Amino acid sequence: MAGNSFGKLFNVTTFGESHGEAIGGIIDGCLPNITIDFEAIQNEMNRRKPGQSAIVTQRKEPDTVRFLSGIFEGKTTGTPIGFIIENANQKSKDYSHIKDTYRPSHADYVYDKKYGHRDYRGGGRSSARETACRVVAGAIAKQMLEGIKIEAFTSSVGDIFIDKPYQDLDFSKTESNVVRCPDTVTAEKMITRIKEIKKQGDTIGGTITCVLKNVPIGLGEPAFDKLHAELGKAMLSINAVKGFEYGSGFCGAKMKGSEHNDVFNPDGSTKTNLSGGIQGGISNGMDIYFRVAFKPVATIMQPQDSIDNKGNRVIVEGKGRHDPCVVPRAVPIVEAMAALVLADYFLLNKMYK
Amino acid sequence: MAGNSFGKLFNVTTFGESHGEAIGGIIDGCLPNITIDFEAIQNEMNRRKPGQSAIVTQRKEPDTVRFLSGIFEGKTTGTPIGFIIENANQKSKDYSHIKDTYRPSHADYVYDKKYGHRDYRGGGRSSARETACRVVAGAIAKQMLEGIKIEAFTSSVGDIFIDKPYQDLDFSKTESNVVRCPDTVTAEKMITRIKEIKKQGDTIGGTITCVLKNVPIGLGEPAFDKLHAELGKAMLSINAVKGFEYGSGFCGAKMKGSEHNDVFNPDGSTKTNLSGGIQGGISNGMDIYFRVAFKPVATIMQPQDSIDNKGNRVIVEGKGRHDPCVVPRAVPIVEAMAALVLADYFLLNKMYK
Amino acid sequence: MAGNSFGKLFNVTTFGESHGEAIGGIIDGCLPNITIDFEAIQNEMNRRKPGQSAIVTQRKEPDTVRFLSGIFEGKTTGTPIGFIIENANQKSKDYSHIKDTYRPSHADYVYDKKYGHRDYRGGGRSSARETACRVVAGAIAKQMLEGIKIEAFTSSVGDIFIDKPYQDLDFSKTESNVVRCPDTVTAEKMITRIKEIKKQGDTIGGTITCVLKNVPIGLGEPAFDKLHAELGKAMLSINAVKGFEYGSGFCGAKMKGSEHNDVFNPDGSTKTNLSGGIQGGISNGMDIYFRVAFKPVATIMQPQDSIDNKGNRVIVEGKGRHDPCVVPRAVPIVEAMAALVLADYFLLNKMYK
Amino acid sequence: MAGNSFGKLFNVTTFGESHGEAIGGIIDGCLPNITIDFEAIQNEMNRRKPGQSAIVTQRKEPDTVRFLSGIFEGKTTGTPIGFIIENANQKSKDYSHIKDTYRPSHADYVYDKKYGHRDYRGGGRSSARETACRVVAGAIAKQMLEGIKIEAFTSSVGDIFIDKPYQDLDFSKTESNVVRCPDTVTAEKMITRIKEIKKQGDTIGGTITCVLKNVPIGLGEPAFDKLHAELGKAMLSINAVKGFEYGSGFCGAKMKGSEHNDVFNPDGSTKTNLSGGIQGGISNGMDIYFRVAFKPVATIMQPQDSIDNKGNRVIVEGKGRHDPCVVPRAVPIVEAMAALVLADYFLLNKMYK
Repeated sequence: MAGNSFGKLFNVTTFGESHGEAIGGIIDGCLPNITIDFEAIQNEMNRRKPGQSAIVTQRKEPDTVRFLSGIFEGKTTGTPIGFIIENANQKSKDYSHIKDTYRPSHADYVYDKKYGHRDYRGGGRSSARETACRVVAGAIAKQMLEGIKIEAFTSSVGDIFIDKPYQDLDFSKTESNVVRCPDTVTAEKMITRIKEIKKQGDTIGGTITCVLKNVPIGLGEPAFDKLHAELGKAMLSINAVKGFEYGSGFCGAKMKGSEHNDVFNPDGSTKTNLSGGIQGGISNGMDIYFRVAFKPVATIMQPQDSIDNKGNRVIVEGKGRHDPCVVPRAVPIVEAMAALVLADYFLLNKMYK
Repeated sequence: MAGNSFGKLFNVTTFGESHGEAIGGIIDGCLPNITIDFEAIQNEMNRRKPGQSAIVTQRKEPDTVRFLSGIFEGKTTGTPIGFIIENANQKSKDYSHIKDTYRPSHADYVYDKKYGHRDYRGGGRSSARETACRVVAGAIAKQMLEGIKIEAFTSSVGDIFIDKPYQDLDFSKTESNVVRCPDTVTAEKMITRIKEIKKQGDTIGGTITCVLKNVPIGLGEPAFDKLHAELGKAMLSINAVKGFEYGSGFCGAKMKGSEHNDVFNPDGSTKTNLSGGIQGGISNGMDIYFRVAFKPVATIMQPQDSIDNKGNRVIVEGKGRHDPCVVPRAVPIVEAMAALVLADYFLLNKMYK
Repeated sequence: MAGNSFGKLFNVTTFGESHGEAIGGIIDGCLPNITIDFEAIQNEMNRRKPGQSAIVTQRKEPDTVRFLSGIFEGKTTGTPIGFIIENANQKSKDYSHIKDTYRPSHADYVYDKKYGHRDYRGGGRSSARETACRVVAGAIAKQMLEGIKIEAFTSSVGDIFIDKPYQDLDFSKTESNVVRCPDTVTAEKMITRIKEIKKQGDTIGGTITCVLKNVPIGLGEPAFDKLHAELGKAMLSINAVKGFEYGSGFCGAKMKGSEHNDVFNPDGSTKTNLSGGIQGGISNGMDIYFRVAFKPVATIMQPQDSIDNKGNRVIVEGKGRHDPCVVPRAVPIVEAMAALVLADYFLLNKMYK
Repeated sequence: MAGNSFGKLFNVTTFGESHGEAIGGIIDGCLPNITIDFEAIQNEMNRRKPGQSAIVTQRKEPDTVRFLSGIFEGKTTGTPIGFIIENANQKSKDYSHIKDTYRPSHADYVYDKKYGHRDYRGGGRSSARETACRVVAGAIAKQMLEGIKIEAFTSSVGDIFIDKPYQDLDFSKTESNVVRCPDTVTAEKMITRIKEIKKQGDTIGGTITCVLKNVPIGLGEPAFDKLHAELGKAMLSINAVKGFEYGSGFCGAKMKGSEHNDVFNPDGSTKTNLSGGIQGGISNGMDIYFRVAFKPVATIMQPQDSIDNKGNRVIVEGKGRHDPCVVPRAVPIVEAMAALVLADYFLLNKMYK
């Protein structure tokens, strides 16, 4: 209820602050008898972790996951999977200057107003460091969802975007570059842009597109818990996200029904897929695809006007280690959240069998 | 769990099919001692109801709400509020032709696959008729949220859109025209467009913008239940919705941090509001605003290729009474869902007092 | 959250006051394709309904259930089942004398303190009239749980009790007498006792024993949601219940491990069943049995000292129509709640298949 | 949903197996700004921990709690509190003999049937070791509930019981003896009995009584989530519990209404308290008291007939370190679960303010 849990049957609860001792979580509801590939989990962690390339924050965290329960002799037991990740590289001193100060477009101000007492170091709980726990849970969900493919990629950085439908992309290229864009020509432009922005002490937004293949027909629980509604919530719960659209999305709002409708093939698949693989909130067996908008990171290496907790005017300027663009590291987070949604609805749908 | 409930503390569960005997719901968690304005509720129903103007479906439903419990001597008692709305004007025969047929971009196919047995009349449970119950619940939520203003309006129909920031609009004009656009010049164009589309037997999409004013600081429960994540889910759960963005939205993904950050005034308000009234998932006291994309209605009055439940090719063509554009009637639904989210988080936030 | 829902996957929410217009509920999560036997439902209602015999309240309610959704062509569709029961025989005037008065051992006082505004007529929401809705939901749950047998019976009234293990009883006799005791000799004594008590204007407590046969192995979700914990909650949520025990129960607390342990047969069944069919919170395939204690009804036809809402001393005396012993009518309620718990855990357990 | 979480607003999720690396949990929903007394938490842990006296298991666990988040500068921040307890003294070899064997009246058999793969060491997840996490969470809940007194004590061991109402007991004596019985004469008899039983290689059951003082009026959410229903569930979720009764309990089932009703004093308190401090599921300001029955521990140091997972007959005999009577160590667990229920309903009730 206090908001740190996600999912009903496949449920994950996370804890931890950016500069606390450790972060971690509990996965409750993973099926038993799933053989866990620990290397695959760590690989997902490495895709998200800081310090992985020149275009992300230089904070160094090994982000090694320690599993404490729920896995026995390499396989899940159906009991809750507890895990922790030690915070190795806190530099809390980087934050003493913001103890009493509210940074623009950060959560400092609202946390103070809501809770009255906050861990200000690195944004505390509001830091995207929390998402490391989501990646752990998502990696396990992926392993439970054998056969389903979850592929996210950077589709735009600022005004640089991939000018092709996703069907024309080679996803095996996504990890071939640090910005995680499967179109390698566009990837180069994106990387260049991020480097320029970083040099300016500024930051930039972007979008991630995600494609879910081989999703079984029938996932989704109308009326309120439509599959895309939960996917939307999942994505919007990621730090810095400002928008979500699936299938035709906002473009669909400009179309006519005669253009937009997806005509069936005799086998129940559709010739077009403007629906985005979901009809009436339920998966129809076609590819599910959606797009997520990320704002530019709020911490910039430039002086900004702000206020302290007494309402006095102050100047704040980012110190320490920050991302000039959140999108490259958010790709595995988007995948993880998609996996959590699918895992939950996959289990829910078993009730109908 | 099966998806027909929304909200935690202010919870609504709905039931009912398009052409069943009645639809209805239960509101559990409304505060006691709220004086109920029944006329205001009926007024919201009238804004959503079919047959209200030339540009919506001509099905005639009085949509009179019968309250059965939870209100005593005109005031809520804190016990569950049960209500029903009789379906007065079912014309089930209009649907006998689709008993075994899957209409393109409707939920017929997936309902059959998921449940194996469905009420095909008018789309059954997948019909937007269900949203009438949301409007009832939302109207009560609004009354519980005295002081908060919830204002939605049609911001685009096809490629016709309002070319002004919402701050320059006069919301007292929203109800002055049948398309619910506060910019009366644009409204006229929209109405003309919908009439053309209707004449073609086609349908068209659109967007609704919603502004929430006077929301107290502190609503929202990170990490997963951020206020905008729940607003997004609420909107995406409405029939025909394809996208959601708040604050700077998808445009924000093109911006730089130095442009996007909202600088504080000494009182904690911000000079700009690209954040959209929410930081870190928690309301900051500024206006919350968001935009919702609706696809064109799938039922068109033109012959379309489709299949039956044996996989045979058939031709379907809309019969009966349908909306050429869902947006005018969806305005009160968007408001209702926003009210439900705010009511829930308003109650949740009381725990911190 | 506000407490009017029960169950996770098989979920029922109820509404309604004793003397409101109608009571009703929504069942969300019933499997599709269940053929509904409406007569069987009404039969359960008749077992609970007032006026059925000389030893229960003489309020006359037909308790006819009107189903509004979720059932199509006689079978469930997987969508929510809405239903209402009109309150036909309210005699609100019987209660005007308690408008401002708190009856001893009733909920009047605490409702006033908690909600500040209450429907005082017949106890309003706190009346056991609400349980009629549970019986509807339970009857549907029973139909979904084909093969499982749920048998409750009156095991004691005051100090008159059945002096045999349940295995020696013939459950086909339970409905042969108005007190619902399968031991017909004991039944006669119970009926005589209740008649005496009624003549005194007094009331009396009793216990109900319930046996669940053919429950599949594996139902129950430790650690917190153990099967017997949820059964206990379900029973304790019934009006007037003061205690719950299963298997050896309170007697087990006096035993030694060497006496109490159930030794296995080679097929996994056990020679004894002091465990009561549940080990570690999970059903083991043996009979589940439990016992529920009901206090005497608080409304007595004798003058009692009490207070009004100003703290003034007043005399209250039951008027109208009341049960001298709640137990005969509570037998189907106990069965209904057991059915709801089993239905929910049955669906939950499908996730492991 | 998978059962490892308890509470709605004050929510705790636990993980961990008896002989895994560590156990732990997450508390989500604790109010911010609570100053945490770590010594008081450890003190509760010491009351539950193994090896504390001659009448409990001799497994040595320091049960030191490591808090990882949610507490900053000694005070809660309103964010989730993650904690772990390392398992220091696993002797997994003690359990290799039961790898393929089902111990009588243990959960081995049902875990195998339900999950298909289990950590057999020390009962794995089904071990009462999990309750250490509940004690941590309960200790924090107690600190949030300043002013409320939660007092549990051993009220019987086998057929030795305290022959006085709780009002005549001096709770300051509860911790003065190893069996946690405030009546010191009875305590001596209990200790002697447990020592005899232990010498026999046997075990014995018992009961715990718990009294909650200064509970505010208004806690409880009818119809289903009555305060005593949730207390009952909480207690029944503790390992080895077979029964729960509150107020008059099973004795109340033998009484007449004229004997059982609690007459009001002018201030709303009652002259008697057979209701047990709860009316209609809502606390009325009087003492809440209840009694919990524990079966004898299933592991006995005597040879018992049993079966292995092939259905072959085997002899099992307890090895290692076990409790002859669970009750002394369960006293703080009962208190912890009571604290969790009260904390949750305390927060829920704030919504009405």
